[in-house]
Amino acid sequence: MLSFASDYTTGAHEAILRRLLETNLEPQTGYGFDDYCASARDKLRAACGCPEADVYFLSGGTQTNATVIAAMLSPYLGVVCAATGHIAGHEAGAIEYTGHKVLPLPERDGKLDAATLEAFLRDYAADDNRDHVVCPGMVYVSHPTEYGTLYSHAELTALHEVCRAHGLPLFLDGARLGYGLASLDTDVTLRDIAALTDVFYVGGTKVGALCGEAVIFPRGNAPTHFFSIMKQHGALLAKGRLLGLQFDTLFTDELYFRISRHAIDMAERMKRGFADLGCTFFRPSPTNQQFLILPNELLDHLRSQVAFGFWEKYDDTHTVVRFATSWSTTPDDVDALLAILRTLL
Amino acid sequence: MLSFASDYTTGAHEAILRRLLETNLEPQTGYGFDDYCASARDKLRAACGCPEADVYFLSGGTQTNATVIAAMLSPYLGVVCAATGHIAGHEAGAIEYTGHKVLPLPERDGKLDAATLEAFLRDYAADDNRDHVVCPGMVYVSHPTEYGTLYSHAELTALHEVCRAHGLPLFLDGARLGYGLASLDTDVTLRDIAALTDVFYVGGTKVGALCGEAVIFPRGNAPTHFFSIMKQHGALLAKGRLLGLQFDTLFTDELYFRISRHAIDMAERMKRGFADLGCTFFRPSPTNQQFLILPNELLDHLRSQVAFGFWEKYDDTHTVVRFATSWSTTPDDVDALLAILRTLL
Amino acid sequence: MLSFASDYTTGAHEAILRRLLETNLEPQTGYGFDDYCASARDKLRAACGCPEADVYFLSGGTQTNATVIAAMLSPYLGVVCAATGHIAGHEAGAIEYTGHKVLPLPERDGKLDAATLEAFLRDYAADDNRDHVVCPGMVYVSHPTEYGTLYSHAELTALHEVCRAHGLPLFLDGARLGYGLASLDTDVTLRDIAALTDVFYVGGTKVGALCGEAVIFPRGNAPTHFFSIMKQHGALLAKGRLLGLQFDTLFTDELYFRISRHAIDMAERMKRGFADLGCTFFRPSPTNQQFLILPNELLDHLRSQVAFGFWEKYDDTHTVVRFATSWSTTPDDVDALLAILRTLL
Amino acid sequence: MLSFASDYTTGAHEAILRRLLETNLEPQTGYGFDDYCASARDKLRAACGCPEADVYFLSGGTQTNATVIAAMLSPYLGVVCAATGHIAGHEAGAIEYTGHKVLPLPERDGKLDAATLEAFLRDYAADDNRDHVVCPGMVYVSHPTEYGTLYSHAELTALHEVCRAHGLPLFLDGARLGYGLASLDTDVTLRDIAALTDVFYVGGTKVGALCGEAVIFPRGNAPTHFFSIMKQHGALLAKGRLLGLQFDTLFTDELYFRISRHAIDMAERMKRGFADLGCTFFRPSPTNQQFLILPNELLDHLRSQVAFGFWEKYDDTHTVVRFATSWSTTPDDVDALLAILRTLL
Repeated sequence: MLSFASDYTTGAHEAILRRLLETNLEPQTGYGFDDYCASARDKLRAACGCPEADVYFLSGGTQTNATVIAAMLSPYLGVVCAATGHIAGHEAGAIEYTGHKVLPLPERDGKLDAATLEAFLRDYAADDNRDHVVCPGMVYVSHPTEYGTLYSHAELTALHEVCRAHGLPLFLDGARLGYGLASLDTDVTLRDIAALTDVFYVGGTKVGALCGEAVIFPRGNAPTHFFSIMKQHGALLAKGRLLGLQFDTLFTDELYFRISRHAIDMAERMKRGFADLGCTFFRPSPTNQQFLILPNELLDHLRSQVAFGFWEKYDDTHTVVRFATSWSTTPDDVDALLAILRTLL
Repeated sequence: MLSFASDYTTGAHEAILRRLLETNLEPQTGYGFDDYCASARDKLRAACGCPEADVYFLSGGTQTNATVIAAMLSPYLGVVCAATGHIAGHEAGAIEYTGHKVLPLPERDGKLDAATLEAFLRDYAADDNRDHVVCPGMVYVSHPTEYGTLYSHAELTALHEVCRAHGLPLFLDGARLGYGLASLDTDVTLRDIAALTDVFYVGGTKVGALCGEAVIFPRGNAPTHFFSIMKQHGALLAKGRLLGLQFDTLFTDELYFRISRHAIDMAERMKRGFADLGCTFFRPSPTNQQFLILPNELLDHLRSQVAFGFWEKYDDTHTVVRFATSWSTTPDDVDALLAILRTLL
Repeated sequence: MLSFASDYTTGAHEAILRRLLETNLEPQTGYGFDDYCASARDKLRAACGCPEADVYFLSGGTQTNATVIAAMLSPYLGVVCAATGHIAGHEAGAIEYTGHKVLPLPERDGKLDAATLEAFLRDYAADDNRDHVVCPGMVYVSHPTEYGTLYSHAELTALHEVCRAHGLPLFLDGARLGYGLASLDTDVTLRDIAALTDVFYVGGTKVGALCGEAVIFPRGNAPTHFFSIMKQHGALLAKGRLLGLQFDTLFTDELYFRISRHAIDMAERMKRGFADLGCTFFRPSPTNQQFLILPNELLDHLRSQVAFGFWEKYDDTHTVVRFATSWSTTPDDVDALLAILRTLL
Repeated sequence: MLSFASDYTTGAHEAILRRLLETNLEPQTGYGFDDYCASARDKLRAACGCPEADVYFLSGGTQTNATVIAAMLSPYLGVVCAATGHIAGHEAGAIEYTGHKVLPLPERDGKLDAATLEAFLRDYAADDNRDHVVCPGMVYVSHPTEYGTLYSHAELTALHEVCRAHGLPLFLDGARLGYGLASLDTDVTLRDIAALTDVFYVGGTKVGALCGEAVIFPRGNAPTHFFSIMKQHGALLAKGRLLGLQFDTLFTDELYFRISRHAIDMAERMKRGFADLGCTFFRPSPTNQQFLILPNELLDHLRSQVAFGFWEKYDDTHTVVRFATSWSTTPDDVDALLAILRTLL
C-alpha cells in the first residue's frame, strides 16, 4: 500500500546496502573502533567544519537523547525544552528514567524561543525557593521540530546566546536534520549548527539509513568516559561497523544532502498538490512532514488506500494527520496520493 | 589481518544481506509491527515449541540484559548470577544503572550450580537482617557462559527447580546460544531452554546477524507494557524490520543452526590443532570460544600476525587469551592460525 | 522576630517533648519495631477506622512522596497530579530521580478535578501512540493543597471513582492533613480519606511533631517489602521510636485534632483581621495558610518586622505572600501581625 | 529487659532533650538555615580544625551514604569498599538504587588496605576491556568498621595516598565515629580524619542523638548544589533545627567525646569480663561493639534475659553475636550481663 506514514517505512539507500555487501567479510574491530567508523568520523568532522569534534554512533533517537542528556547533566539538573519536544512527550519517560526532570516551556510552531527561555532562566534565578526546584542544566531543541518547522539562523543564534550567558549547553536533536538542511526555506547550515550548539546529532534512521544517529560534540567536548556511558545505556553496538559504514556512505559525495533534498522536492510537490486541492494546513512546514486538518469521515475512506500518521484530534469532526516524504518517495507516489485525495474531497 | 578476536568481527550471513536488498523498498510499519517481525516471531515460536511465546527484538546483549532485568524486577530486588556473569563485570554497570544490585555467587567454569544457589537462597531466608539486605528477585545464567562452557540438561533442570521452589524467574542470556545448541557436547535443545526458563534470548549479533537479540517469554509471560519499557530503555528501533528480517532469515531452513554448527566445526579443528601443538587450555570449552594460557613473549609476536582476545593475566609471565570462531571462519583461517602458532612455539 | 513564615518554624508540642524525656532510657528495638510505633499504629488504625491498615513512619514530606510513589509504580508508569502539586515543582526532582515522570494536569485553586482527570485518562487510552507516551500509573492529590484549599467529600469521591474505574491507586499527601480536618469549612473526615484513597499520610512535621509522617495503606495494601524499600530510599530511622512516640502522643486524647483546630482558630482570627484591613486575598483558603496580594514596597517594610513566605510574583508591583499559623501560634502573635500591617497599609 | 542489642536502643543524651525543651518555641528558619545548625557548623569546623569546611546535617547512615556517594560520583562511576562495608551488604541496595555499582574488595578485620586498593586500581588501569567495566570513582571506608575495628593513622594515610595518586575521593563513614575516636587503642584524631579524607560524617544516631549525621567536606569541597541533592534524596528535614541543635549540644564542652569515652569504658569492662569468663572473641575490637562466638544452646537461654545482636552463623553449633555498649550503658548493666553469662557458661 502507498505509504506516507513516516520517513522510516522503507529500508536504506541502496548505496548503503551495496557497501554492506562489499565489506561484509572484512574482519573489523568491534564497538566503534573499526575503519568505517573512523572514516565516517573524519567525513562528519569535515562536513561540520570541526576538525576537533568527538563523534559517536548510536542506534536511534530516543536512545541518543537519553544517553546524551544523562551524560551531560549532573543528577540534580533538568533539561529545558519546548512543550512539544520529543523528549517531553513521546519517549515513554526515557529521560525521567535516567533520573532527570524534563522542564517544558511554551512553544510556538514547535519551537522554543530565546525570549521565553531567557525569562524562564531569569525567573528561576530570582526564585527564593529555587533550591527546592529542579535546576535547569541544559537546553534541548529539535531541528526540524516535531511539527516540521525550522529555526532561523537568527533564532538559533539567540538561543545559543541565552545558553552561553547562563552557562547551559545547547543540545540539538537532528533526527531529521537532513530534511532541515535541505529545506528551501532555511538559512541554517550544518556548520552553523556545529558552531551554535554544544552537542547535536545527525539523524540516519529517518534519512536513508537502516538505523543510526551520529552524535557530534563539535569542540571535542564529549563528557569523560562517554564510551562507557553508552555501554551503560545499552547504546553500544558490538558491530559498530554497521553504523560507521552507513554514515561513511551517507557522507561520501554528499549523499546525505542529495537524498534529503529529494525528499524536500517530493514534499514541495505534495504541498502544491494539497494547496491546489484546497486542503487546510495545520501549521506551515518547510520540511518533509506536512500536517493537514482533515474531516474524520474522509479519513475513514483514506486509510484503506494510503498509510499516513494520525497526529492529534483537532475538533469533534476533524483530525490533524501527517504525510511524510522521505529519500525513497517517488513523484508517482505523490501523484497517486493526490489522485486519491481528489476523489475523496 | 587474520582475526579470531571475537565472533562479531565480520558482517552478516549473506542470506541476510540478500533479503535486505530484496525487501528494501517495501513500506513497512515501524517499531516491530512489520511483516518480517511477525514472521520471525512465528518461526521462533515454532523452533521453541512455544506457540504462546511473546517475542521481542532488541539490538544488543547489554541492552537486552538491562531491559529484561529491569522489566522483571520490582525496584527493591536484585539479580543473582555467577561471579563471572557478563552482567556482573562487563556491562559498565548497566544493570546497576537501572537501580538493581547484581548478586554474584561463586562459579565453577563460569557456571552457577543449583546447590550454591539453593544455599544462598536458604541463607537469605534465614537471615535475621534480611530486610536490610537486597532481596534476590531473579536468576541470570548465560549459555554458553563467558568461558564458553555449557549447562547440561540436568544442571539446567536443577537450577529451574530451585528457582521454581523459591518463586524466582530464571533468565538465560543466549548471546551465543547458537554455538551452545550446536556444540558436540550438549544435551540441551532450544525447546529445553524454552521449557526450563522464564525468559531467554536467542543471540543474533554474534551468530550471523548485523545486530539483534530475540527475547522470548516462552509462556506469553512478558511483563505488562514491555513495549513501552523497551522504548524507555532506548531499545526500540524505528525500523524494526531490520531485526525482524534478520531473525526471519536465520530461522528459515535452520540457517541459525547450520551456521552455528559450522563455527563449532571450526572450533573443533582449532582445538585439535592447539592440542597437537601442546598448548595449555585455560578451561575446557565445548563451544566456539577457546581459552589458552600462553607465554607473554609469544603474545608479543603473535599479535602482529593475528587478532585475538586478551582475557586476563594468568601469572607474571603468562596470559589467558581467547580465540573465537564464528559462522564466517574458514578452515583456511584456522590452518593459518595454527601455522603461525607453530612457528612461535 | 514574629514569624508566620510557615508551620514548621517552632519545635514540637510540649506533650511530645515531655514523653521523649519520660521514655528516653527505655531500651527499644530499632527500625520501627519498638513499643511506641506499635502503639501509634494501633491508634492511627482506630482513628482511621481501618483495623487492617498497614502503617509506616517516615521523616518528611518529600521523602514520603518519593518512597510511596516509587514503591507503588512499576518503572514505566508516571504519576498524575495538579500542575501546582508539590511533587510537580517543589521537590527538586525527587520523583523523577526515582525514574518516574510527573504528569501535571490543569488545576483550579490547587485542586485536580475528576472531570479533568477522566478526560486525560480517556485521551490517553484513545491515543494511537500511547505506547510511546508515559502510562499514568497513579494519582496524587494533596489535602490541603499547596494553596491551602480542600477537596469536598463529593470531589474526593469523584476522584476516587475515576481512579477505581481506571484501576489507578489514589495517593493523598496529608503533610498538613490536621489543618484540613480541623477546617471550619470541610465535610471530609479522616475516615473518609481512609475509605476513598489507596494510600495517604498523616503529616506530623507541620502539625506539632519535630519530624515524621505516618503513611497509611488503609486496607493492609502496602507494597511487598515496603520496609526494604524505605531502607533503600534512606527513609528508615534506626531510632524509629522517635517517630512512633510522636504519633503515639499526637493520637492520644485527640491531641492532633485539638492542636490543628487551634491553628485554624488562629487562621480565622488572622483572616478576619486581613479582611478588616481591606487586604486582597490571592485565593480563598479554609486552612492555616493564607495568601495575600501585597504591594512590593509594603513588603520591604514588613519583612523587617515579621517573617512570612514569598510565594510568587503577582505583577510588576505586587507579590503573593503567605502567612501560616500553626499549633504554636498565639492570639497575641496574630494581633501583633495585624497591628504591624495596619501601620503599613 | 537488659539490652546490648545495639547502640541505638535508647533515646538521646539528656542534655539534648533539655535543650530541645528550652528552645522549643523559638521560631527558626527551616531546612538547616536556623541558628543551631549555624552554631553546630562552627563548632564542628573548630573540632576538625577546618575553618573552611562545608557541613550538612542528614538523618541517618544509609541516607547519608547514598546521598554523599551519588552526589560525588558521575553516573558511570562506582564506589570501592571492603567486602564487609555497610554499603556492600546492609543497605538494601540503596547505593545501587542511585545507579552506582558497589565494587567490593577483599577485607581484613573489616578493613580495606592500601595495597589491596592499589593493586585493584592498577589492574583496572591495565585492563584492555576497562571501558566495559565500571570505573572506580571513589573509595568508602568505615571507621570504626562493621566489626568494630579501627584504621591506624598509618593505614589511613596509606589509603589517602593511594586515593590521591589515582584522583579518587576518600569517603569515611563515621556512623560510630565517636567510639572510634575515644578508643583506648587508636592514634587517629578527628583532625586526622578531616585531613586525610575528602568527605566524612560524624555519626549522631549511634552516639547520643535521636537521629542525625553531620557530613563534613573538610576543604569547602561540597559538590555543587548539595542542598538540592539532599532534597532530591528526601534527606532534607523541614525542621533542620532538630539536627542542628543536637550537634550543637554534642559539640559543646566536648560532650560527644565524653559520652563516647564512657561507652568505651563500659566496653572495656565488658571485654575484661568476657575474657575472665573464657569467652571466645570472634575478632578483637577496640571499640564499643564486641563480637563473641557462643554455643547455640547457650544463646537460646541467653536471649530470654538480655537483648543482643545475631551476627552470623559461625558453624553448625556456634553463632557470632554482638554486644554493643553506648553512651547510656551503665556499669550495672555490664555487671548484670556478665552475671547472666556466668550462670550459663
